[in-house]
Amino acid sequence: MEFFYSENIKNDIITLDNFESRHCIKVLRKSNGDTINIVDGKGTLYTGLIKNDNPKNCKVKISNSVKEYDKKDFYIHIAISPIKNNNRIEWFIEKVVEIGIDEISFINCERTLRHTLKMDRIMKTAISAMKQTLKATLPKINNITNFEEFIESNKDSNKFICHLEEGHKSQLFHFENKLNDTKDSCILIGPEGDFSIDEINKVKNFNFNSISLGNSRLRTETAGIVACHLLNIIHKND
Amino acid sequence: MEFFYSENIKNDIITLDNFESRHCIKVLRKSNGDTINIVDGKGTLYTGLIKNDNPKNCKVKISNSVKEYDKKDFYIHIAISPIKNNNRIEWFIEKVVEIGIDEISFINCERTLRHTLKMDRIMKTAISAMKQTLKATLPKINNITNFEEFIESNKDSNKFICHLEEGHKSQLFHFENKLNDTKDSCILIGPEGDFSIDEINKVKNFNFNSISLGNSRLRTETAGIVACHLLNIIHKND
Repeated sequence: MEFFYSENIKNDIITLDNFESRHCIKVLRKSNGDTINIVDGKGTLYTGLIKNDNPKNCKVKISNSVKEYDKKDFYIHIAISPIKNNNRIEWFIEKVVEIGIDEISFINCERTLRHTLKMDRIMKTAISAMKQTLKATLPKINNITNFEEFIESNKDSNKFICHLEEGHKSQLFHFENKLNDTKDSCILIGPEGDFSIDEINKVKNFNFNSISLGNSRLRTETAGIVACHLLNIIHKND
Repeated sequence: MEFFYSENIKNDIITLDNFESRHCIKVLRKSNGDTINIVDGKGTLYTGLIKNDNPKNCKVKISNSVKEYDKKDFYIHIAISPIKNNNRIEWFIEKVVEIGIDEISFINCERTLRHTLKMDRIMKTAISAMKQTLKATLPKINNITNFEEFIESNKDSNKFICHLEEGHKSQLFHFENKLNDTKDSCILIGPEGDFSIDEINKVKNFNFNSISLGNSRLRTETAGIVACHLLNIIHKND
């Protein structure tokens, strides 16, 4: 099975953009009359017949649609400091979309080393991972906001922070019952040099629980990926 | 803290190779009399004084050594089909060393698309990840063996296989008690096109349990990374 992506849907016609049209017609050699699957990134899976196999502007007539194709009953939000190396950011995006994520926020912390993001590259990576893993929904991806602003405005029910400072930290599993009661969670992942003491103290006022992801000193992107996977596993364990 | 790597240890003198000498003397501008930390990849952490700050052949006099620096009481073995894309193999190596792994085997399955490995690149990636995450032990990394040969000779106590075929599959957590009794495990991860039915049937004769890593269709390297993390989390939950 192969998914294509388009948001250009009018009445019962879907138009693929240049990139998707080329992939469909030139690379996979589809032509008029072939049936293909298209997702809109908002949860709907369409099946349709190619009506115009133009390799730059392919048009498909919808024959069937499934709303809420990959709907689930929990919500995972990872708020992460941008990583210095762009490849590592894209790798993080690919992996969390693959594993399953609903929202990604980039947060500017005291020790964050990167202050701009290539949002178009990030969206392309997310779309590619969504198609590859046969999902129909793209996560919400928020460009950089300030740490303080983020923690003050965050409305998720279960709030966590991963940091390396000493002090009491629980495993995420110890929150299993709470996580299965109120199924939306946000986990904060700090920059290469960790959150500052000031930041760790600040989040306490906003009900963020300190958690540990194991004994190893993980890179930022690795911490984000394993945190996302743990939340998925806990929720699917119901 | 920064770790250097060398296996060249004679009496109380450690010699750094060209790469490590250059990094130590040229990049980090260490010189005679400075104290540095060196790991041997076999579990020992040495502390020593630079005696000869030659940027191609740096020599260090050992002042202290800690054996079994990162010893733990469990053993994680991931047996994985080589991934077609070399970068993805190296990402996998970096991430599992970072998270914590004892042995990596590459297995040649029916649908494996890559039949040779750049073992020198793989070892370099493993050494770099070991140093970065402040570990003293390198995992054992085995070059490609045949699937049948591997499953027939594997001696780990807890054996698992991840595949996408229908049928009963447990979450890894359901084996928590057994995993904490006999603390060595091996998980098989298949190629891009999954294990064949034939391979899935064969492993049943060798006590491999079918497990699920969640509902998403994960890429090979992602499955390897999250399986390794889950085993680490289960063992550290004691």
